[in-house]
Amino acid sequence: MVHNGIEYADMQLICEAYQYLRDVMTLSAQEIGQVFEGWNQGVLNSYLMEISADILQQQDPQTGAMLVDMILDTAEQKGTGLWTAVNSLQTGCPAPSLAQAVFARALSANKARRSLASKQLPAQTMIADYCLDTVLRDLESALYCAKLAVYAQGFDLMKTTSDKEGWKLNFADIARIWRSGCIIRAGFLHQIAMAYQSQPELEHLLLAPEFASALSERLPGWRQIAAQSMFSGVPMPSLTSALSYYDALRCEVLPANLLQAQRDYFGAHTYARVDQPAGKKFHLLWETQHRQQIQR
Amino acid sequence: MVHNGIEYADMQLICEAYQYLRDVMTLSAQEIGQVFEGWNQGVLNSYLMEISADILQQQDPQTGAMLVDMILDTAEQKGTGLWTAVNSLQTGCPAPSLAQAVFARALSANKARRSLASKQLPAQTMIADYCLDTVLRDLESALYCAKLAVYAQGFDLMKTTSDKEGWKLNFADIARIWRSGCIIRAGFLHQIAMAYQSQPELEHLLLAPEFASALSERLPGWRQIAAQSMFSGVPMPSLTSALSYYDALRCEVLPANLLQAQRDYFGAHTYARVDQPAGKKFHLLWETQHRQQIQR
Repeated sequence: MVHNGIEYADMQLICEAYQYLRDVMTLSAQEIGQVFEGWNQGVLNSYLMEISADILQQQDPQTGAMLVDMILDTAEQKGTGLWTAVNSLQTGCPAPSLAQAVFARALSANKARRSLASKQLPAQTMIADYCLDTVLRDLESALYCAKLAVYAQGFDLMKTTSDKEGWKLNFADIARIWRSGCIIRAGFLHQIAMAYQSQPELEHLLLAPEFASALSERLPGWRQIAAQSMFSGVPMPSLTSALSYYDALRCEVLPANLLQAQRDYFGAHTYARVDQPAGKKFHLLWETQHRQQIQR
Repeated sequence: MVHNGIEYADMQLICEAYQYLRDVMTLSAQEIGQVFEGWNQGVLNSYLMEISADILQQQDPQTGAMLVDMILDTAEQKGTGLWTAVNSLQTGCPAPSLAQAVFARALSANKARRSLASKQLPAQTMIADYCLDTVLRDLESALYCAKLAVYAQGFDLMKTTSDKEGWKLNFADIARIWRSGCIIRAGFLHQIAMAYQSQPELEHLLLAPEFASALSERLPGWRQIAAQSMFSGVPMPSLTSALSYYDALRCEVLPANLLQAQRDYFGAHTYARVDQPAGKKFHLLWETQHRQQIQR
């Protein structure tokens, strides 16, 4: 199930890159296919990249146009991505970019509504002065980083359940099995296998030293493309949610302190304090004139 | 349930604005409280904005510091936001920003991991030269638009199930009930009630003419803040996913054509064509030398 959840997100990431190149950089299907062919020789080498490059260069036997331009943009799904997203919510182990890939398919399915909305909703897009060579370099970086974050979400989901159920899953083996023949097979899984080989108890895939320098080098490109998605109006929900996930993960102090205060204000749900053990819960008597704090 | 799902996202949006002002603009809790107090007089007027302004200006009775700075940033949840997100996935009616709010709480809960990751993961953030007055204006716009998109996701979820189950829900009444006394009560709900009053069969809240000019004016600010979230490394998962949702909704041609081709390539799942009725399904014989298309 998690394999398929990752697969959904991996496919979605490739589609997001395709749309950016198609709609912002106005490349043809054939040209994008050639870009993907090039990427398939580098860090993005994978079965999904390989077939995407092949697809984009395929002529339509019926009309002679490029086949991909003749295919209707309404995605279908069989349910395994959905199960993974639901499982991620229910176990409290966040896999936002996998869920976004499921939502993206659902959004695409309502073509009639989108056609209507495309004529009515304002765009107010801002297209940056951004040359193709830089875009291609940044997009390759962004895909690499987002893909790493997506795989990390999937492995984290397996680890959470493995720890809870006492399954003792061997993540190096899982990466190797996936590598040898399945839809997400990729050179990249070898690195993941190595990371878990050297640290079977690794807390989180993004923390593996194997990926530190690759991430550090490519992070500026990821930030740039994610920002350009917001400016240009080309939706990249998996790529950008992966960056938000990364930034939340590396955030020492999130704004959940305000959230806990809100919950205590309207529902007396209590909060923990930074200067007290996390198990101690407090409530402020918000409704009284001299607001006092009590322990709950 | 949907009320609470919206509430999760509304709270999360306010928290994201708070974090941006705290971590990028380095405002104090008291200063942010004053900003929120001002916003509560305008289009963002709501109970949640009002209590957030109050909370941020509250002293800690124990230490004399600002209370919010003494509260631990680990969110808890009772489950209603989660139910909404799961329901959204299962009905195929996308509510990505509501789901992101649930994931954000889950991410905040693992404080030990975040502390570790904050020391190890590279940041590579880019802080723009962006003056406070402009930030405040853009952030107010962004919150308004994202809030509208979040409410639209919630109402869409109710409409989908109402249509399916034949409940004939009255959305103007629902907006009015929510307005008169609940955690998400806000002036804003009056506009929503008016929109559904004049068009009970409204396809989607974002398509209501009542919101067109407000959206159009504020969209550049939304894009700007969403992009700055990506550059600055301050995660704003609900605000940015709301923009991706908006952009996908108004997108005439999404990249799901490539996705359908990928599915046909590896699993013979078939695709529909733009020049044929959507019900007709085709498969390309990808594995043969002279690739032919067959109807399935």
